[in-house]
Amino acid sequence: MPDVKEILQGSQIAGARAIRLIDDNDPKAFSLLKQLYPHSGNAFIIGITGSPGVGKSTLIDALIFEFRKRDFKIAVIAVDPTSPFSGGAILGDRLRMQRHGADEKVFIRSMASRGQKGGLSRATKDAAIVLSAMGYEIIIIETVGAGQAEFDIAAVAHSIGIVTIPGTGDGIQAVKAGILEIGDIFIVNKSDRTDAEAAVHELKMMLSMRNSKGQESHLSRPWTARVLKTIAQNGTGVKELFDTFLAHFDFMKQNGRLELKKKHLERLYFKSLLKDLALEKIELFVQESMAFKETLDQIESGTIDPITAAENVTNDLKITCNLKAIRNLKVRDN
Amino acid sequence: MPDVKEILQGSQIAGARAIRLIDDNDPKAFSLLKQLYPHSGNAFIIGITGSPGVGKSTLIDALIFEFRKRDFKIAVIAVDPTSPFSGGAILGDRLRMQRHGADEKVFIRSMASRGQKGGLSRATKDAAIVLSAMGYEIIIIETVGAGQAEFDIAAVAHSIGIVTIPGTGDGIQAVKAGILEIGDIFIVNKSDRTDAEAAVHELKMMLSMRNSKGQESHLSRPWTARVLKTIAQNGTGVKELFDTFLAHFDFMKQNGRLELKKKHLERLYFKSLLKDLALEKIELFVQESMAFKETLDQIESGTIDPITAAENVTNDLKITCNLKAIRNLKVRDN
Repeated sequence: MPDVKEILQGSQIAGARAIRLIDDNDPKAFSLLKQLYPHSGNAFIIGITGSPGVGKSTLIDALIFEFRKRDFKIAVIAVDPTSPFSGGAILGDRLRMQRHGADEKVFIRSMASRGQKGGLSRATKDAAIVLSAMGYEIIIIETVGAGQAEFDIAAVAHSIGIVTIPGTGDGIQAVKAGILEIGDIFIVNKSDRTDAEAAVHELKMMLSMRNSKGQESHLSRPWTARVLKTIAQNGTGVKELFDTFLAHFDFMKQNGRLELKKKHLERLYFKSLLKDLALEKIELFVQESMAFKETLDQIESGTIDPITAAENVTNDLKITCNLKAIRNLKVRDN
Repeated sequence: MPDVKEILQGSQIAGARAIRLIDDNDPKAFSLLKQLYPHSGNAFIIGITGSPGVGKSTLIDALIFEFRKRDFKIAVIAVDPTSPFSGGAILGDRLRMQRHGADEKVFIRSMASRGQKGGLSRATKDAAIVLSAMGYEIIIIETVGAGQAEFDIAAVAHSIGIVTIPGTGDGIQAVKAGILEIGDIFIVNKSDRTDAEAAVHELKMMLSMRNSKGQESHLSRPWTARVLKTIAQNGTGVKELFDTFLAHFDFMKQNGRLELKKKHLERLYFKSLLKDLALEKIELFVQESMAFKETLDQIESGTIDPITAAENVTNDLKITCNLKAIRNLKVRDN
């Protein structure tokens, strides 16, 4: 098991081991996280999401340089199977990333996450705790905008950048229903392509509709989502994107917005942990249960189909929770 | 809710609706699946997996033509976010697939699956039940080899094709630990590239080691995994690949191997369903539980951290299962 002290001292080897444990669903990760949690919470977490091929990794690569120029310690978690960080790229640009290899204030890890218990949110949140405890001030989480992943990121990140590209509707249509709501900064990458202006315009139109709907009504003066053009490949617009993330960070720090957001994310994390732990407990129970074994025999002999069988066993599950222990906790707090 | 009769009659509209329900985690899908299950089970299910960019979709596209030449009714489920079937492609080859659009014995659907309860296995198994009930004889499931997905497919498919490409180690290294064990047919696609022969040779070497380890010892005469070269783009080797899948199908039908495999997959499906249903029950319990509400308050006030809180609530969960109902089931079987 990785040493807690070494992680707190920022050892990249120890940190990498911890993230590996998380990615492997290793039960040892849990006690590690418990020890690291009190030392986490100071990082600003940025989520970057978008369809495959819009250039997320190249953009993040360029952003790393901007953050390093201002001497931020920065970590990246790639959970995007199409990302070169994750080894998913066949384009050979994996090597490109190694130019940060010598910089010990940059730390890049990939996670598989697909089969992960609790899904993407849980895995990346766990990893962010490790990275934050290691002392990284900025944590970027890269996810691919396919399926649920781009929404999961909203349960972890303090600031969300949605990357699109101009062109045959692919870029903007990829900004599908619901994703407009979670983005803080919208990036039209590869903006040297034709129709870049149209893409920016369309995004701004859609966002103005969102803003007029009174989104984020719980905070008196909401953040107005920005739309930026970049060409990640040659760095165009990246400095402005960096400035905008910092501006959003500053905005979040005003009037306790970031604290409020963190509290909200903590509750989500608790729910996700509770779900995973309860499920483990049920799985253990089920494996040892006679009802389960008898049912497996019935499926084997063909006397019951798996759907009806699962429904029957579940119907008979009884779950109760002894409140006393919770009350004891309250006493301990005095 | 889609009409069961229409699905059984093969209506693509009704089938598409059913798969949408599954993909959306809609509770209505469950009762639908219960009704369709007895009519499913006759399809041969092929899993195709591999890293992004190896050409899985192009290969499947070509395979569809081969299956259609022999008049097989064939359905494809793409759960690969990088697949053009899934709308993940930005290369514009999405349109290419539409040439099957007029053929009513071909049915192609994509699923998001990432945030899916029970993960990929559960979602694709559910979808396969629908497609099988619709009368499709061949079901191809396309997954991207990133993270867990390529292993999940082993819980659903009767035959698994692993696609790689020759070249800088990307192809073969992608055939990572464990994946050799699940593949029935290994495909070196884009085999007009240099090093194709080396890739084939290396795969054969690795497979001969697997075979000598006595894999599939439960069946007296095991299937020897094949290695084939294809160039999906121009159709080279696709006919041979098709023949090899059919040969594997025939092999599986001998000596009750397919029945044995199906029984095994049914048990896995039951376990996966049981997990999902139990989890739903836990979530419902947790939402209504006082212990949960009190703990949320404590997290809010900062008197407990989310990890300790989740652990405490879980420790106090009691789970029981009333065996009587299961015994009653047995009586019903007489």
